[in-house]
Amino acid sequence: MSKLTELTRQLERLHINNMYKNDFYWTWDKTDEELAAVFTVADALRDLRERNKSTRVFDSGLGISIFRDNSTRTRFSFASACNLLGLEEQVLDEKVSQIAHGETVRETANMVSFMAEVIGIRDDMFIGEGHKYQKTFMDALEEGYRDGILEQRPTLVNLQCDVDHPTQCMADILHVIHHYGGVENLKGKKLAMTWAYSPSYGKPLSVPQGVIGLFTRFGMDVTLAHPEGYEVMPEIEEIARKNAAATGGSFRKCNSMQEAFADADIVYPKSWAPFAAMEERTTLYQAGDKAGIDALEQRLLAQNATHKDWACTEEMMKLTKDGKALYLHCLPADISGLSCEMGEVDSSVFDRYRVPLYKQASFKPYIIAAMIFLARVKDPVRTLMALDASDAQRKRF
Amino acid sequence: MSKLTELTRQLERLHINNMYKNDFYWTWDKTDEELAAVFTVADALRDLRERNKSTRVFDSGLGISIFRDNSTRTRFSFASACNLLGLEEQVLDEKVSQIAHGETVRETANMVSFMAEVIGIRDDMFIGEGHKYQKTFMDALEEGYRDGILEQRPTLVNLQCDVDHPTQCMADILHVIHHYGGVENLKGKKLAMTWAYSPSYGKPLSVPQGVIGLFTRFGMDVTLAHPEGYEVMPEIEEIARKNAAATGGSFRKCNSMQEAFADADIVYPKSWAPFAAMEERTTLYQAGDKAGIDALEQRLLAQNATHKDWACTEEMMKLTKDGKALYLHCLPADISGLSCEMGEVDSSVFDRYRVPLYKQASFKPYIIAAMIFLARVKDPVRTLMALDASDAQRKRF
Amino acid sequence: MSKLTELTRQLERLHINNMYKNDFYWTWDKTDEELAAVFTVADALRDLRERNKSTRVFDSGLGISIFRDNSTRTRFSFASACNLLGLEEQVLDEKVSQIAHGETVRETANMVSFMAEVIGIRDDMFIGEGHKYQKTFMDALEEGYRDGILEQRPTLVNLQCDVDHPTQCMADILHVIHHYGGVENLKGKKLAMTWAYSPSYGKPLSVPQGVIGLFTRFGMDVTLAHPEGYEVMPEIEEIARKNAAATGGSFRKCNSMQEAFADADIVYPKSWAPFAAMEERTTLYQAGDKAGIDALEQRLLAQNATHKDWACTEEMMKLTKDGKALYLHCLPADISGLSCEMGEVDSSVFDRYRVPLYKQASFKPYIIAAMIFLARVKDPVRTLMALDASDAQRKRF
Repeated sequence: MSKLTELTRQLERLHINNMYKNDFYWTWDKTDEELAAVFTVADALRDLRERNKSTRVFDSGLGISIFRDNSTRTRFSFASACNLLGLEEQVLDEKVSQIAHGETVRETANMVSFMAEVIGIRDDMFIGEGHKYQKTFMDALEEGYRDGILEQRPTLVNLQCDVDHPTQCMADILHVIHHYGGVENLKGKKLAMTWAYSPSYGKPLSVPQGVIGLFTRFGMDVTLAHPEGYEVMPEIEEIARKNAAATGGSFRKCNSMQEAFADADIVYPKSWAPFAAMEERTTLYQAGDKAGIDALEQRLLAQNATHKDWACTEEMMKLTKDGKALYLHCLPADISGLSCEMGEVDSSVFDRYRVPLYKQASFKPYIIAAMIFLARVKDPVRTLMALDASDAQRKRF
Repeated sequence: MSKLTELTRQLERLHINNMYKNDFYWTWDKTDEELAAVFTVADALRDLRERNKSTRVFDSGLGISIFRDNSTRTRFSFASACNLLGLEEQVLDEKVSQIAHGETVRETANMVSFMAEVIGIRDDMFIGEGHKYQKTFMDALEEGYRDGILEQRPTLVNLQCDVDHPTQCMADILHVIHHYGGVENLKGKKLAMTWAYSPSYGKPLSVPQGVIGLFTRFGMDVTLAHPEGYEVMPEIEEIARKNAAATGGSFRKCNSMQEAFADADIVYPKSWAPFAAMEERTTLYQAGDKAGIDALEQRLLAQNATHKDWACTEEMMKLTKDGKALYLHCLPADISGLSCEMGEVDSSVFDRYRVPLYKQASFKPYIIAAMIFLARVKDPVRTLMALDASDAQRKRF
Repeated sequence: MSKLTELTRQLERLHINNMYKNDFYWTWDKTDEELAAVFTVADALRDLRERNKSTRVFDSGLGISIFRDNSTRTRFSFASACNLLGLEEQVLDEKVSQIAHGETVRETANMVSFMAEVIGIRDDMFIGEGHKYQKTFMDALEEGYRDGILEQRPTLVNLQCDVDHPTQCMADILHVIHHYGGVENLKGKKLAMTWAYSPSYGKPLSVPQGVIGLFTRFGMDVTLAHPEGYEVMPEIEEIARKNAAATGGSFRKCNSMQEAFADADIVYPKSWAPFAAMEERTTLYQAGDKAGIDALEQRLLAQNATHKDWACTEEMMKLTKDGKALYLHCLPADISGLSCEMGEVDSSVFDRYRVPLYKQASFKPYIIAAMIFLARVKDPVRTLMALDASDAQRKRF
């Protein structure tokens, strides 16, 4: 049986009726079968592409991307996913176009979506704002579709908000699944999601939150470790706790990187800002309090600097299972002695894991394409089989 | 008979031989039948898309857009139109590339057009310059084609100049035609194209000019109302007068918003700058007179502020036919209490007309696509029928 | 025999096995037959397009462009070439995305290339840096492919580095070949590649270097003329010397524009910066020495200004063969009395050669497309014949 046939048979068994014409905000909105469907379709699309099969589902149509924060890898992943399916990416650059917050979001949303199949939004900077912006945008499109303004209601793919970073975390775990040779092998594996020191401040919390909200669904033993004062959103910890309880895994917190790393199978050391500080920053930005923002930055940098020992050093790695835990990062990492004097990870550690790290990233375009595919294609199983059976090649000659 | 068949039969009866390989600068360059052809093809392309028929006329080819002023909705409309027909949009961003005014326009025009099917230009800021720039650009391409430099001579679609805004006004009237159930029902309808107060200054005159130059062709009673000192270009008023005389409608001017709104079927209240002031500004910009520009801005803002009573309020709307005139705007509007303290329209009025306003905007991508289609496709009737008869679907699965 | 058949027969006779999956850095990396293959495929693709044959080799896939210096014509040429073959261009804009020099190049290279077929890079500003950047980028992709990160290893097309500008110079000479009715007619033709005065400073050396490194391969008599102090890289002069010796042509240097122009068949007068000064500038930039950079700029402008007599005037043109040498320029030129007071060329000379100059530029998209084609298509002859035989049209109706 071919790999593609095997994957379509898996897909056939999953209950995924709710995915068609739906959005992807947070992984915890989705059932286990829906997540499994994303993994399966991502693998299937990759298999088709590797065998030079055309995966164009669309003859024309747009994918709109909105980046309210800089991005290289997520932007190219989204553009690649759109291209793979036959959509043309169009960037809505809010800095150069007539758009603003609030009521005008509703208008802009409709104005750019007349021929859009998918909207990809990254808005991760301000706690309490990113998800809200995505929701406002999509509510406007829902309304526009109902009112007969739009011929179709596009699908949202959350390219990172203040709460979750689902395309990243889904790519992360698909990498882990392949690494361990199947999702069933994740049960009982120990994951350390830990804070790490970085000379920059204010990095989003969506990665650690996304990781604990997702990895706890696979029966893993997940530890979230950070210095005091670097708490993440309590609602997401609650989700992690419930997930763990439901799947026979565990979720616990500690304030020691050593403790988290001890005997870990997988480590994900990464800097982020304290939740409370990010809330404070949002308020300061809304008030336009420049002096307050500068003072906060200084305070946060000083606070970070008291935790320089939170680094993924060679010594720290020795604490992990056989000294050989799988090292994960969403990239780019702050590498000690390379991109900064002292950072999240030792240069030698990073170097040793470079190949798996880049492979981890390589899943993202396929994860995004799978999310779009499942939301836009009515019969995913039949469509994958049709693409497989077709003579149409991606590279035609 | 299917809608598509009906539309192609209408199209078959129109004399449109001059449209093939021609440009779209101003609506008054075009015959009534040519305008009717644009409406018909726009409706046909929309019908094909709604029935998931592929409308790709091109396998490859570029659509070049040049925005010498910011734009979100027109830019996405142009990109959508290109994509619908199979062209890839490429933006010529003059701020980041080696281009300047004058002689170099000729060179740049040729350099970006080797594989271009259509050029979309927005240049609306400076009176006496916008149309000239478009003309210089296209003359260069005509010459380049004759001299054997270009394999094809691309088509211009005017995405707004200092004189007309044809893609906007054609979308506006197609919306009105659908609203009244047919172009024949426009005869005798009263339209108030009026100035409205805005806290910004220097908005282009191309919308009011485009509206009076176009709506007077359908036997409507068109009133242009504005405070003294906000005159539009006299040549365009002359065109409106002649149109009205030829179609049994009327065109008149007055200096009272109330008078214009009285018993109106349709109102189009919108801010614009005085023609003479815009001429002055062009001269100041050419001279690089920064102080002069600032002084002019202050003067214009102060002048605007003496006319805050020119607003589309609830009370003003009550003056219209049954208090229920169709409200039009090219968007974005300056909404009182929302995007500004005092602006062009009351928030409650705008809200009540939001759905029709967005529908009005939804015609623009199809109007642009129709303009491109009629200029690039040799036999539009046969082509529409072929697209309709083909098995090729836009969304393939 | 059709033109296409003739071209494929020529191509059939060439040894080009090394081109498949290879890069295009410098013309002197390539054999004569490989260069001939690029010309042949460029002509074939143009012929196919002129006969409205679809030249889509790809159903989906990306072409990544990286411009570390501003560009209009090269950017549009690359975008046009990608579109012609069915690839979508995606711009990696380093100013707005998370990228930096050094180690991070390796990471970015992989992150943007998951679905890329070709990478086009322009990096011409800093002597000793441009080529190195391209090499680092491609080495990273080679490694990424070997390590199983990338499904394919994209091809590099050098869109201008500090050493060569192959897409420009190949377009230049294809223009010359067509002008003289065949490559065999180039033997013995005299080319003057000369410096010319420009009020700007710091123009790249890659054009003069590329020209002497390429035109000497066709048995031509090539003279490189410049004022003292404007030397180009000695390694490239050495290449020119060897080429000339091997093909029965000649390569010589002089410090007089008159001498070079005397009896020349072809002239290529163009400004560039002194090699040594550019090396100095690179060092100053690396040290962040702003004052040093400003001082260098003043010194270079003053140095330039002592050579205002190096201009392609009407009088100078009279010195050439019958006063009618073919005038070449990579555009844009500094035109005296037009784009500047005193520049590289008289306005009347430029005007007389405008049509051939623009035709010269028109070859660039096809040269780039041919480079991509030969690197990505396994059997170029069979593929061209298949495209020719196919019913698929570029403009479908």
